[in-house]
Amino acid sequence: MRYFLELSYSGKAYNGWQIQNNAPSVQQTLQEALSTILRVPTGVVGAGRTDTGVHAARYVAHFDAECPLEEPQRFCYHLNAILPWDIAVQDVRRVRDDAHARFDAVEREYKYYVSPRKDPFRRDVAYQLIMPLDLDRMNEAAETLLGRQDFTSFSKLHSGNKTNICRVTRAQWREQDGCYVFTVAADRFLRNMVRAIVGTLLDVGRGKLSVEGFRAVIDGRDRALAGTSAPPQGLFLTRVDYPDDVYVKQH
Amino acid sequence: MRYFLELSYSGKAYNGWQIQNNAPSVQQTLQEALSTILRVPTGVVGAGRTDTGVHAARYVAHFDAECPLEEPQRFCYHLNAILPWDIAVQDVRRVRDDAHARFDAVEREYKYYVSPRKDPFRRDVAYQLIMPLDLDRMNEAAETLLGRQDFTSFSKLHSGNKTNICRVTRAQWREQDGCYVFTVAADRFLRNMVRAIVGTLLDVGRGKLSVEGFRAVIDGRDRALAGTSAPPQGLFLTRVDYPDDVYVKQH
Repeated sequence: MRYFLELSYSGKAYNGWQIQNNAPSVQQTLQEALSTILRVPTGVVGAGRTDTGVHAARYVAHFDAECPLEEPQRFCYHLNAILPWDIAVQDVRRVRDDAHARFDAVEREYKYYVSPRKDPFRRDVAYQLIMPLDLDRMNEAAETLLGRQDFTSFSKLHSGNKTNICRVTRAQWREQDGCYVFTVAADRFLRNMVRAIVGTLLDVGRGKLSVEGFRAVIDGRDRALAGTSAPPQGLFLTRVDYPDDVYVKQH
Repeated sequence: MRYFLELSYSGKAYNGWQIQNNAPSVQQTLQEALSTILRVPTGVVGAGRTDTGVHAARYVAHFDAECPLEEPQRFCYHLNAILPWDIAVQDVRRVRDDAHARFDAVEREYKYYVSPRKDPFRRDVAYQLIMPLDLDRMNEAAETLLGRQDFTSFSKLHSGNKTNICRVTRAQWREQDGCYVFTVAADRFLRNMVRAIVGTLLDVGRGKLSVEGFRAVIDGRDRALAGTSAPPQGLFLTRVDYPDDVYVKQH
């Protein structure tokens, strides 16, 4: 029987979600803890890659268990006791046997945090950019991201994707607790896409690029046109959505 | 001429505010940075001690400069560039020549953060206590802290204080962003006082101590009666207030 695990992690100590040789990954760490709890080697499949140093406030991964799990809260408590401090499990939910954490996801959301001042408590969770930013212009540019478009300009070269088309449903900056927060939601994201978008929007915010210039970057479909990627510590995966029918009702 | 410096710091890497032999302190680190900027050995006097590992969201220290400082925002920018990431200066304000960061403070406020769940993003800024807590009873007990009282039960032994009387003006728990936050304000605090109070209130919250039992701890005036001190990483100094007339108007 298959389960979805809802978790959060600080990406600081990991070379991203995905298992790699000779580098710590969230996937590997989670597999080892699950295998210990379930007493059988257990693989996990994640909702998608996150890059080195990128955080997840809400991530979803699926795994298979031979027997039904104990009560979810107890299971999470035990799993959290084995996992290191920087990975925390919030919930485990029974899903259909063919449910897939990556392929069934219908929407994902990221948030990017920029701190406009030096802040000892946000060093690992925001990009500290001590510089005046024009949020209105950044939002004007961000609006042009909405809809179904080709985002080749914000992708990694040679990613091997069949298409670079994504449907962006939200793209907006706002102020929150003294930070500038960019929220972006889409049906899918290309590798490095959010950080490339944020880096280019920050160029708009500091007057290096006009709103029209930003639009031309998208239309150019050329990675060389975009700005420098914003650093990873400001980026959080914050939501992964699935259709209701992937979940199996439990009593 | 004398200045008040407003700063914040993460206490994680420091053995508290106060200079010590062979141990890093915020005071020492700040003095070195100021001495570099002002090009003359410069001492700073803080609003009070903070213990090893305790944070400050707003701390005030005074220092003397031989010449008037450059524009405050520029001065802070340069000072922040020299200071390590875990100490940040927000403002510098000219004060009367006899103003004193410690003796002129009329009220101080602390906040203590308890996270009732494992949270990878709050490891260094909250006490993670995975346990049901009765916030109503904790607030009932906290209310008995209000007023002018002898707090010997929540002091360190042999502190050398002439009196252990403090006037507590606020003592209240509330929920905020998934954390339990205790806010306490007083004219003065004894060493270790807030963490001893929080540790004892947590005993009330988990049913180990009654509200009447908590009141008896205060009345007993005996450090042995209080609960274990709560750990330092949850504690923040959040406010230090001065009378308006310590500040000198600048043009």
